[in-house]
Amino acid sequence: MYWPIFSIVVSLLAFGVAAWLYRWVSRLPTAEGPIGEIGALIRAGAYTFLRTEYKLLGRFVIAAAVLILLFFPRPFWTHDIKINLLMAVTYIAGSVLSALAGYIGISIATLANVKSASAARQGLAPSFMAGFRGGAVMGMAVVGTSLLGAAVLYLLTKEAEPVLAFSFGASSLALFAKAGGGIFTKTADISADLTGKVELGIPEDDPRNPAVIADNVGDNVGDVAGMGADLFDSNIATLAASMILAVPLGQVDIIFCFAGLGLLSSIIGVFLSGVSKNGNPGRALNRGTYVTNVIFALLSLGATLIFDFSIRLWIAAAIGLVAGAVIGFTSDLFTSDGSKTVDKVARASQTGPAFTILSGFSYGLLSSFPAILGIAAASLLSFKVCEPLGAGYPLLGISMAAVGMLSVVGMIISNDAYGPIVDNARGLAEMGHLGDKVLQITDELDAAGNTAKAITKGFAIGAAGLTVIALLAAYQEILSKAGVTGDGLKFDILNPLVFFGMMVGIAVPAVFSAMLIMGVDRNAERMVAEIHRQFDTIPGLREGKEGVKPDYNKCIDIATVGALKELIPAGLMTIIVTLTVGFIGGVHAIGGFLAGNITSGLLLALLMSNAGGLWDNAKKHIEAGNYGGKGSDAHKAGVIGDTVGDPFKDTAGPSINTQITVVSLVASLAATLFILYSVF
Amino acid sequence: MYWPIFSIVVSLLAFGVAAWLYRWVSRLPTAEGPIGEIGALIRAGAYTFLRTEYKLLGRFVIAAAVLILLFFPRPFWTHDIKINLLMAVTYIAGSVLSALAGYIGISIATLANVKSASAARQGLAPSFMAGFRGGAVMGMAVVGTSLLGAAVLYLLTKEAEPVLAFSFGASSLALFAKAGGGIFTKTADISADLTGKVELGIPEDDPRNPAVIADNVGDNVGDVAGMGADLFDSNIATLAASMILAVPLGQVDIIFCFAGLGLLSSIIGVFLSGVSKNGNPGRALNRGTYVTNVIFALLSLGATLIFDFSIRLWIAAAIGLVAGAVIGFTSDLFTSDGSKTVDKVARASQTGPAFTILSGFSYGLLSSFPAILGIAAASLLSFKVCEPLGAGYPLLGISMAAVGMLSVVGMIISNDAYGPIVDNARGLAEMGHLGDKVLQITDELDAAGNTAKAITKGFAIGAAGLTVIALLAAYQEILSKAGVTGDGLKFDILNPLVFFGMMVGIAVPAVFSAMLIMGVDRNAERMVAEIHRQFDTIPGLREGKEGVKPDYNKCIDIATVGALKELIPAGLMTIIVTLTVGFIGGVHAIGGFLAGNITSGLLLALLMSNAGGLWDNAKKHIEAGNYGGKGSDAHKAGVIGDTVGDPFKDTAGPSINTQITVVSLVASLAATLFILYSVF
Repeated sequence: MYWPIFSIVVSLLAFGVAAWLYRWVSRLPTAEGPIGEIGALIRAGAYTFLRTEYKLLGRFVIAAAVLILLFFPRPFWTHDIKINLLMAVTYIAGSVLSALAGYIGISIATLANVKSASAARQGLAPSFMAGFRGGAVMGMAVVGTSLLGAAVLYLLTKEAEPVLAFSFGASSLALFAKAGGGIFTKTADISADLTGKVELGIPEDDPRNPAVIADNVGDNVGDVAGMGADLFDSNIATLAASMILAVPLGQVDIIFCFAGLGLLSSIIGVFLSGVSKNGNPGRALNRGTYVTNVIFALLSLGATLIFDFSIRLWIAAAIGLVAGAVIGFTSDLFTSDGSKTVDKVARASQTGPAFTILSGFSYGLLSSFPAILGIAAASLLSFKVCEPLGAGYPLLGISMAAVGMLSVVGMIISNDAYGPIVDNARGLAEMGHLGDKVLQITDELDAAGNTAKAITKGFAIGAAGLTVIALLAAYQEILSKAGVTGDGLKFDILNPLVFFGMMVGIAVPAVFSAMLIMGVDRNAERMVAEIHRQFDTIPGLREGKEGVKPDYNKCIDIATVGALKELIPAGLMTIIVTLTVGFIGGVHAIGGFLAGNITSGLLLALLMSNAGGLWDNAKKHIEAGNYGGKGSDAHKAGVIGDTVGDPFKDTAGPSINTQITVVSLVASLAATLFILYSVF
Repeated sequence: MYWPIFSIVVSLLAFGVAAWLYRWVSRLPTAEGPIGEIGALIRAGAYTFLRTEYKLLGRFVIAAAVLILLFFPRPFWTHDIKINLLMAVTYIAGSVLSALAGYIGISIATLANVKSASAARQGLAPSFMAGFRGGAVMGMAVVGTSLLGAAVLYLLTKEAEPVLAFSFGASSLALFAKAGGGIFTKTADISADLTGKVELGIPEDDPRNPAVIADNVGDNVGDVAGMGADLFDSNIATLAASMILAVPLGQVDIIFCFAGLGLLSSIIGVFLSGVSKNGNPGRALNRGTYVTNVIFALLSLGATLIFDFSIRLWIAAAIGLVAGAVIGFTSDLFTSDGSKTVDKVARASQTGPAFTILSGFSYGLLSSFPAILGIAAASLLSFKVCEPLGAGYPLLGISMAAVGMLSVVGMIISNDAYGPIVDNARGLAEMGHLGDKVLQITDELDAAGNTAKAITKGFAIGAAGLTVIALLAAYQEILSKAGVTGDGLKFDILNPLVFFGMMVGIAVPAVFSAMLIMGVDRNAERMVAEIHRQFDTIPGLREGKEGVKPDYNKCIDIATVGALKELIPAGLMTIIVTLTVGFIGGVHAIGGFLAGNITSGLLLALLMSNAGGLWDNAKKHIEAGNYGGKGSDAHKAGVIGDTVGDPFKDTAGPSINTQITVVSLVASLAATLFILYSVF
């Protein structure tokens, strides 16, 4: 019982660090002028979205909790209802804690953006620190709450299943937060670009544009709150799956040990991070990630040797860590500014937008290969390494690889949240008229965020991949506990029920992402109409007359209401299809369904994330003066590619991660129901 | 032994019908003027491509045959080399017969195009008949040769395995014919459009354009020869897989009975088809398909009752038939002109090309769902229907569904080959100055070809799906024959080797299609450069001066050489990855690999085919006067969507079918090698 307590201690330490960093950021000075006021507008807009979202989600969570109380893990009349009650309560706890972490993230991000912009007057290093430490608050809060929740639950119940319900709570919130935030942010981004940059030819963050505040709000609700909920979810799902596999083997200690050490390494990493006066901020961020990796590897190796854990389990975790780095590195190769592929997409843009799309899409497809191979190799190797330990250990090995990959998640989130903060800072610097020198610094910091994103995204997708494999194994363990034996625990591809499930499973991420992309389309249409209305009816707005302001709130409202309206069908579809497949084909169909869903989900997530990143950077590459530079035909084609890529990389792509996890958790929770009631 | 002989008799009948139809078409009159000369140019270009392609493929086939002789089904020094020799000879026979069918197809298609254009002077009905009966020659030739080959091989050897090698021969040819033809046709199409329609604003088939003959050649080599090779391949693979499953059960008769009756139904269907003077040619084509379906259902039911086959096997075949129709119908719903989705994509184009792409892509993703569900349900139901017949029958049931779906393949090919013939006829009518009335008729016939394509494509993809499931089952049967027993025959998703294979398997169709799309890109770049060179250096060409002709052959050369250069890496990649996975992970990894490859291949094939079709029709919808009509911004966006869709729907999408089959056949052929030599 020492290690869960160790995890709790480290989590509390992380909260302390988060509080200290929050104070540190909030004490930084704010620049004079309109920047404070604009920052307040963004903050208010973000809170508006969160409030509306959480109100809606509250209803969803209550409804789901009632269903859990009645039916999960099995109908209440068939056994002691207390078990269902525990599940329902932990489910609510999971969603509330995840919501809380998102709230903290928004709170610090909408503060740090102003501070980072203001600090840029003193130079690059202070501005970087404001952004990075702001992001670190989010990192600490997310990992601290998820680890704390899992450890406390385990201490109270000595079982792993409640962590599953806790994870499902986090995950159902993440599905909506990520997808909803993703629709919001791209609605605003696309509408602002289309009406501002394209139609009127005004700069990106021009305050005349009615969508400009919504655009900045979007960075926060999509990339901060949404991403935080996503990684909260991955982290807790990994813990849940590992615990389910570890409990029967008496190996829970190593999981809490490694998870605690991972968070500790991230804390150390955060304090070691920084950039010298003329240093490269992008490299600083990546160095932070790698340093944290090494610290974790050494600490966990030490703990393994001192406390006599199996070295094979450590190797499995190390395999995960390395695989995460490799996946991040290869997606960086394909998508980072300065890469050959980006240059080729930019060059193809000279022939017209169709070639921007075709070449970016092709490279997106290609780029999925190394990452998928990395996940496949990591799962195979970690399985094989742990095979000599005996039955049950090989699958635990796969989940240890996931734990290893996610050990540095605190640092990953810090880097990831840094991105939207400095992106906002750039906008604030422009709208607050802080001058060209400041703008140049914030531009550089913003570009660094994009570089870091390639690596962190690699970790996030890789971790989701390994996590769901671990969840698949956990699902089997749950079936075994429910009394299923022998061939009943085998998911043979040639079993027609497994195959049936697999076929349906591969279609779900496709349908899910289509629904989200169409949601962005529809919502952007509404917003563009509103922007046109404002330009047409507010006198002096187009010309930028002194004192004339657009109605920013109306745009925020449209993005909020539209995002929530569009995400519900997509979220419900995934849950309903999962239950339908389970009630038709039973546990075997679900096994195939999960496998199909994971594989096609990974493929589509990688394709969309990487193609989107490529198009974004190809556009930037042209804007930097290549192939005709700004205003050329190649640039126009690049902008079209970027617009296509926006919902790919910031809405659909990353939401698929969450969709996969949700489906896996629903399947695990409902496993007993499928055993009891299914057509075949 | 009666039924294989019955199949041979029907095949010979089909050859007779093909010869009669060929004569019928060739006796039709040719219009006066330049049309004959232009037709000869197209014909010569198509033969040039075929000769170059077959020369290259000849080398590949010989190399592969030597490898088969040495190593397949197992190294020659481990058993009687005569078995290897038989495999090598049948492999060569498969590729030669498939090549022959492609040659016949090109021969009739490049004759029927001129005849159809000329007949249009007499009205719609005669022109339709020329196009349709031309296509039917191809249909009869393809199905006749494949069925004849399978039946003769079975009569000679009394075994199913040689048919597998025969199928692999056809399939390796199809991979290159389909992908090579696909790259050729889209290279020419895109280059002609970009330089002609977009840059110079001249009509689609303007004889000034140096790429215009290559474009018309492309229709023949891509859509006639390539598609024919593809369906030859699917048809023979289905027969091979069914026979492997049927031989141990003593049920080969029903397969040859149904295959023969299917071809007979197609012959009847061909003679029943026609269009009244003012009839709708699109509806006539689809009616032909459905009528053939019904004839086959009745004939096979009769045979089942009279000759006392199991009625459950007939039901399985009927399920396949219905599923094919449903898949065709739903893809028609998504992609046909006049559908709601097409209208929505056209409307979205008003906001700009990014929205054309996003909406078309989303609907493409969505449209995969009903088709995948159809295949999943067909395989589950046909399995369950045959379960009471005892061990081995359920999997035979799935292959019977594939046999049922492909029973009408003769009619499908006829309809499919009709498309490029009348497309060519349209071009010839324009280049041959046959006047507006003729052009109007050929336009209408061309549109009908697109309508029919949605249905036939549904059959082709659905059949590929069921076929590879049958091949997966056949693979298991081969393992069992090679002495593998018990768990060794189970492909449990949680076996890490199976999972590893599955992950790699899902990436292969993605990489394969990316390579093809990039091949089209690169090749189109070369061709556009050549077209610009001709316009710049040939005096009077741009202005259309009397007597000035572009160098058509140079463009044909570029398309030919480039296509063959680009397809080889893609083709080899799939074969090499399959062998690598097998030698690393053994037969279990290959089981997973096949499953992953099938599922992601189906998803991508449906996405690309349907999205491509949607974009094509959305552009036509705008050109018909909607949302601003020709020349509007929406039209420009629609053209961009169509250009993106071209390699999707005519190169990558349909080639994936063949890629899946090739991979399955390589895996089956190499199964013994994987058992003997693999790392894990």
